[in-house]
Amino acid sequence: MDFSVSEIATSLGADLAGDATIRVRAAAEPASAGPDDLAVAMDLKYAAGLEQGQARVAILWAGADWQALGLKAAIFVVRPRYAMSGLTRLMDPGPDIAPGIHPMALIDDSAEIGDGAAIGPFVVIGKDVRIGARARVASHVSIAENASIGDDALILQSVRIGARVRIGDGFIAQPGAIVGADGFSFVTPEKSGVEKVRETLGDAGEAGDQSWIRTHSLGAVSIGNNVEIGANSTIDRGTIRDTSIGDGTKLDNLVHLGHNVTVGRDCLLCGQVGVAGSSKLGDRVVLAGQCGVNDNIFVGDDVIAGGGTKIFTNAPKGRVLLGYPAVKMDAHIEIQKALRRLPRFMKSLQQDK
Amino acid sequence: MDFSVSEIATSLGADLAGDATIRVRAAAEPASAGPDDLAVAMDLKYAAGLEQGQARVAILWAGADWQALGLKAAIFVVRPRYAMSGLTRLMDPGPDIAPGIHPMALIDDSAEIGDGAAIGPFVVIGKDVRIGARARVASHVSIAENASIGDDALILQSVRIGARVRIGDGFIAQPGAIVGADGFSFVTPEKSGVEKVRETLGDAGEAGDQSWIRTHSLGAVSIGNNVEIGANSTIDRGTIRDTSIGDGTKLDNLVHLGHNVTVGRDCLLCGQVGVAGSSKLGDRVVLAGQCGVNDNIFVGDDVIAGGGTKIFTNAPKGRVLLGYPAVKMDAHIEIQKALRRLPRFMKSLQQDK
Amino acid sequence: MDFSVSEIATSLGADLAGDATIRVRAAAEPASAGPDDLAVAMDLKYAAGLEQGQARVAILWAGADWQALGLKAAIFVVRPRYAMSGLTRLMDPGPDIAPGIHPMALIDDSAEIGDGAAIGPFVVIGKDVRIGARARVASHVSIAENASIGDDALILQSVRIGARVRIGDGFIAQPGAIVGADGFSFVTPEKSGVEKVRETLGDAGEAGDQSWIRTHSLGAVSIGNNVEIGANSTIDRGTIRDTSIGDGTKLDNLVHLGHNVTVGRDCLLCGQVGVAGSSKLGDRVVLAGQCGVNDNIFVGDDVIAGGGTKIFTNAPKGRVLLGYPAVKMDAHIEIQKALRRLPRFMKSLQQDK
Repeated sequence: MDFSVSEIATSLGADLAGDATIRVRAAAEPASAGPDDLAVAMDLKYAAGLEQGQARVAILWAGADWQALGLKAAIFVVRPRYAMSGLTRLMDPGPDIAPGIHPMALIDDSAEIGDGAAIGPFVVIGKDVRIGARARVASHVSIAENASIGDDALILQSVRIGARVRIGDGFIAQPGAIVGADGFSFVTPEKSGVEKVRETLGDAGEAGDQSWIRTHSLGAVSIGNNVEIGANSTIDRGTIRDTSIGDGTKLDNLVHLGHNVTVGRDCLLCGQVGVAGSSKLGDRVVLAGQCGVNDNIFVGDDVIAGGGTKIFTNAPKGRVLLGYPAVKMDAHIEIQKALRRLPRFMKSLQQDK
Repeated sequence: MDFSVSEIATSLGADLAGDATIRVRAAAEPASAGPDDLAVAMDLKYAAGLEQGQARVAILWAGADWQALGLKAAIFVVRPRYAMSGLTRLMDPGPDIAPGIHPMALIDDSAEIGDGAAIGPFVVIGKDVRIGARARVASHVSIAENASIGDDALILQSVRIGARVRIGDGFIAQPGAIVGADGFSFVTPEKSGVEKVRETLGDAGEAGDQSWIRTHSLGAVSIGNNVEIGANSTIDRGTIRDTSIGDGTKLDNLVHLGHNVTVGRDCLLCGQVGVAGSSKLGDRVVLAGQCGVNDNIFVGDDVIAGGGTKIFTNAPKGRVLLGYPAVKMDAHIEIQKALRRLPRFMKSLQQDK
Repeated sequence: MDFSVSEIATSLGADLAGDATIRVRAAAEPASAGPDDLAVAMDLKYAAGLEQGQARVAILWAGADWQALGLKAAIFVVRPRYAMSGLTRLMDPGPDIAPGIHPMALIDDSAEIGDGAAIGPFVVIGKDVRIGARARVASHVSIAENASIGDDALILQSVRIGARVRIGDGFIAQPGAIVGADGFSFVTPEKSGVEKVRETLGDAGEAGDQSWIRTHSLGAVSIGNNVEIGANSTIDRGTIRDTSIGDGTKLDNLVHLGHNVTVGRDCLLCGQVGVAGSSKLGDRVVLAGQCGVNDNIFVGDDVIAGGGTKIFTNAPKGRVLLGYPAVKMDAHIEIQKALRRLPRFMKSLQQDK
């Protein structure tokens, strides 16, 4: 695949200068770009890299003096992060999944697969599954009975879609993602130590010698449109109602959503985030890597939490959080400053006394 | 599938009232229940939901006035959490795995599979594997040479059971669980920086330019009866002895157990918990989501740790823990209260001086 | 398989005493060793165990009185941890993957597989893939188009190697590891709440009602020689350049590396570590379990971080870190000591006033 400067500029809605007919084959960092690469140098700090590399064409910051940079052509962008999304979408060859249904895929006769599907080898699709148009399903995937998936799905290797799971259009699942594992819900015949601790905040009482009885998951998982689930992430089904994820929400790798969790729309849950059972996240919530959300709490719309934040209690709309346990980010910063001074501070006060 | 009111009440050992012959098809939350659903409303707070929904039958809290709630029949439960386990067990259709051995499963001639097995497509079962009666093995599973698994196993998609792993009866493994990966154990020919830090608590000394040499895992994993392993969890084999998990213990999704770890019986390890190599957990230990346990330590029976607790040192029997590093839960709460006041407190003291 | 005492001693470069012709079948802990086992008792503290067990041969600490311990032969080691690597390498039977290419493996005609390969069933190898000599590839693996892997690879069940990924010699991947998932990179057309928080450290401003647009990953993953990746770990491809891992680096289970991350050589990343996008780790960095590294930061050579450390800012070469947020280990210990005294300390000061 290659692309002309004018094609790229058009797809980004960006201005160009110089020879619009030059064709490039790949994007590259400025310093390592070859003569057929498009150097990505959307900030002044990459100017030096351009000199080291051999690119004839670059994507530059608005107002850059492209000729002084020794280029034959240039494309100018205003919001580089956003331009990257357009550029990479254009140039991504995507995974190689042959059109049609591979002879080594096992698809139940009752399943309905929409037009234009590409389904790889060793895929298993169960009874009464419905998949929309233009699905791309890579090798080793399984989609269990009565699951339904909308149009334009991209489902990568060894993804597991459980029974009765319902997913909207534009779904992307990275390899190993599991949608619809059973919830982790166990109960003892009599009150357990954990229940006592929750009631008393600290005393487990006499721990009984009881075994855990399983609560099965009768609910499924409901997922809106344009949702992406990261590699090896796990989403449990609900107990009675469905676990649910709203439109436009994106989950990174190794994210865990417990049973009955509700995630709103346009949320970002970064790598290794965990949300415990029955908690509810509003819309546009952003949780950085390794955040944790306690069970049965509510995290309001537009909450943003920094890396590793552990949210134990309800968080109001718009709150910016950090810490374990989570506090407002500015409070966290104040506390950390105080903490670093604390040992010396305590020593000095004791000398005073 | 549908169920009569009397069948449900009998299976729960619960009292019923009204027309015991009405049949329901599924459990539902009260407000969204249709006329053929069983509304699950085991607490007074769900009474309003019943009015919104169309259920004719509900599971109610003990003493509820079912007729005033407009129902045709009702089942009464004393311990709702426990009743849920019975109800959901009754109503769970379970995964759809066809009886018998799928023609696309590859089973070594030397393997012994007990009566009543259901083994899905693209399964690989190695030499001298032994699996008990009534096993249900979903697609894409592999069970390596000399592994043995007891009766009534439910092994879901793409679970990996490593060589020589031994598992008791009633085993459940959610999709993607890996039992018997190699331990993470590496050593340098000469003392490494990490070893020096552990000895001196803080000084890595001159870091040598050494590479890590692998210690292979000769041990396997031993798992008792009635153990469940969550989706994409990973359990490493031991170095010489087996990594082991006691009867009745349940692991949630994305849990990691390092090599040589011993987990007692009836423990609950919630989502994303990690236990480092050679540590030992007693019986009935409960670790909430994202807890971590340092290597080579001991966590006593009946220890309960809140979300995100990082346990660095031995924890005595019955201790309730929270925090990073873990302290007793009440101490943690005291410390956090003090911390929130600390910045202002330090400021006020400095003004005094 | 069995091994003579002299074979074992030779392979370890260790001294032996007694009957060098005795053969043993397996390594065992001293107390549970049978007469045909090799007891592993490299420290004085295992002497009692030897009396309980039935071993005739043991690996002992230097200078041990083997005859007084009732043994017929003994092997003496100076650095036990290192000796374990040699012993376990010698005795590990390795996974059972039949030589040659299984008839149920699907290998594209354009792929080049080196001599001596053992490739299991239900494996998928894509176009123009190149794999070196003596590769062992277990069942259910997929290796996507244009990936290249060096000699002596051991790739276990359901590992996913993405398109264009380049890997050196001596690669080991535990089951479920995913190399080359798409990066987690999303952008809003206008500035998002997260961007505002990063600029102002605390104020998300008016949260706009925007959806996330995907930045595709055009880069791949580059991995050096002698790298091991743990079970269910996930490594994302880069946006423009490759995500990269240096020679000799080892990743444990459930580790997450974001897009564009660079990890140096001979690093150890323990279970559930996460490194966010575009961060750079130097050489010989050791991150204990559940550590997190913020995006776009630099962690210097020889940095060592204790369990659960969350590194938010650049860390200089050789620093030993602990805590959330990470501080120098000795500062962390000082702070924690102060913290435990803090509630009482504040109370006493208030009484003074």
